[in-house]
Amino acid sequence: MALKLFELVGTDEQRPFSPFCWRTRMALAHKGLSAESIPWCFTEKEAITPHNSEKVPVLIDGETSVADSEGGRAMGRMLNWWGDVTVVGGMFPLIVADIPSHLKPVDAVYFRKTREARFGKPLEEVVAGREKSVEGFRRTLEPMRLTLKTQAYLGGEKPNYADYIVFGAFQWARVVSPFKLLAENDPVYAWRERLLDAFDGMARKSPGHQV
Amino acid sequence: MALKLFELVGTDEQRPFSPFCWRTRMALAHKGLSAESIPWCFTEKEAITPHNSEKVPVLIDGETSVADSEGGRAMGRMLNWWGDVTVVGGMFPLIVADIPSHLKPVDAVYFRKTREARFGKPLEEVVAGREKSVEGFRRTLEPMRLTLKTQAYLGGEKPNYADYIVFGAFQWARVVSPFKLLAENDPVYAWRERLLDAFDGMARKSPGHQV
Repeated sequence: MALKLFELVGTDEQRPFSPFCWRTRMALAHKGLSAESIPWCFTEKEAITPHNSEKVPVLIDGETSVADSEGGRAMGRMLNWWGDVTVVGGMFPLIVADIPSHLKPVDAVYFRKTREARFGKPLEEVVAGREKSVEGFRRTLEPMRLTLKTQAYLGGEKPNYADYIVFGAFQWARVVSPFKLLAENDPVYAWRERLLDAFDGMARKSPGHQV
Repeated sequence: MALKLFELVGTDEQRPFSPFCWRTRMALAHKGLSAESIPWCFTEKEAITPHNSEKVPVLIDGETSVADSEGGRAMGRMLNWWGDVTVVGGMFPLIVADIPSHLKPVDAVYFRKTREARFGKPLEEVVAGREKSVEGFRRTLEPMRLTLKTQAYLGGEKPNYADYIVFGAFQWARVVSPFKLLAENDPVYAWRERLLDAFDGMARKSPGHQV
């Protein structure tokens, strides 16, 4: 039974960029699975409604759909939230203005309208001064940085779902934005490089910026 | 073979307050173990040098000493760092000025000197405006707060070492400072209440403030 994965894209269907989709894609690869990608845009709600979801990723395995991939273990859940809140949430205001240019006009309008309402200002103002504000983001990665001093991955010697959650965020940023979120001498940078190389370079081969 | 635990105290030997000692104390209780407490002050380095440590906790089991209790599992390490960096590190500038009054004069001088050098200003200036700056600290707990919406503890249905690391930080603050780090309607507050009640109220019975 073939797996199918609804993945968020913009104008370029070969350029899936959602951090939430990327973590699922990585976790599937981890298990030796691949899924046929179904490109999905922000405003195409009706395409996934039959699968009981308003958001992607939606993974379809024959008749069964899974609205998100659950890390499972209790401690993993806390790391998942850390990834969502601190990493995804922390980088979003640094890259958000780079996203609309990747979207179809109708989606770009939708994206700009909803996100500017959330931030309370134009996206260009949100990212203004990001060369400076990125320093705060980098500081919030300190628990991860310290962890990576004694082990290659959050999961230990090998990556696990916690790694994919955080990596998904970095891959998202890499796909849509040329902005350098990490300094090259950061252990987190080296960790990202390893995951870009994982699974025969799956993530690195996906269109993105050199960051 | 009786366990002995060097624990940081100030003037009141019945008032151990180090977050690092508290996590060990909780973890011992979790395993049904108790340890004789050996009060230790900041400047008494020579008392623990024979145990190959410059810091407490030092746990002595017969002839064997353990300089810290290691969480062990790889993912736990990341949560440990989160606890150290985000929670301990985040609350320190909110309570630091309340600590010297608990210390013997020689330790109070040592503490103030070393910590003011670290912060680059008087401790009273560090905590100034904490009614406002506590809001930032509370925001950094969001990953934990979201986790606690679906499970009682970071460890799941029951607490594990990750809980004790974070709880140790809150117990430290509660022992030395009357400052309210948490709002009463915060799920993290309810979690702290449960751990204050754990092990027959071990932590709650230890001298501290109503926070």
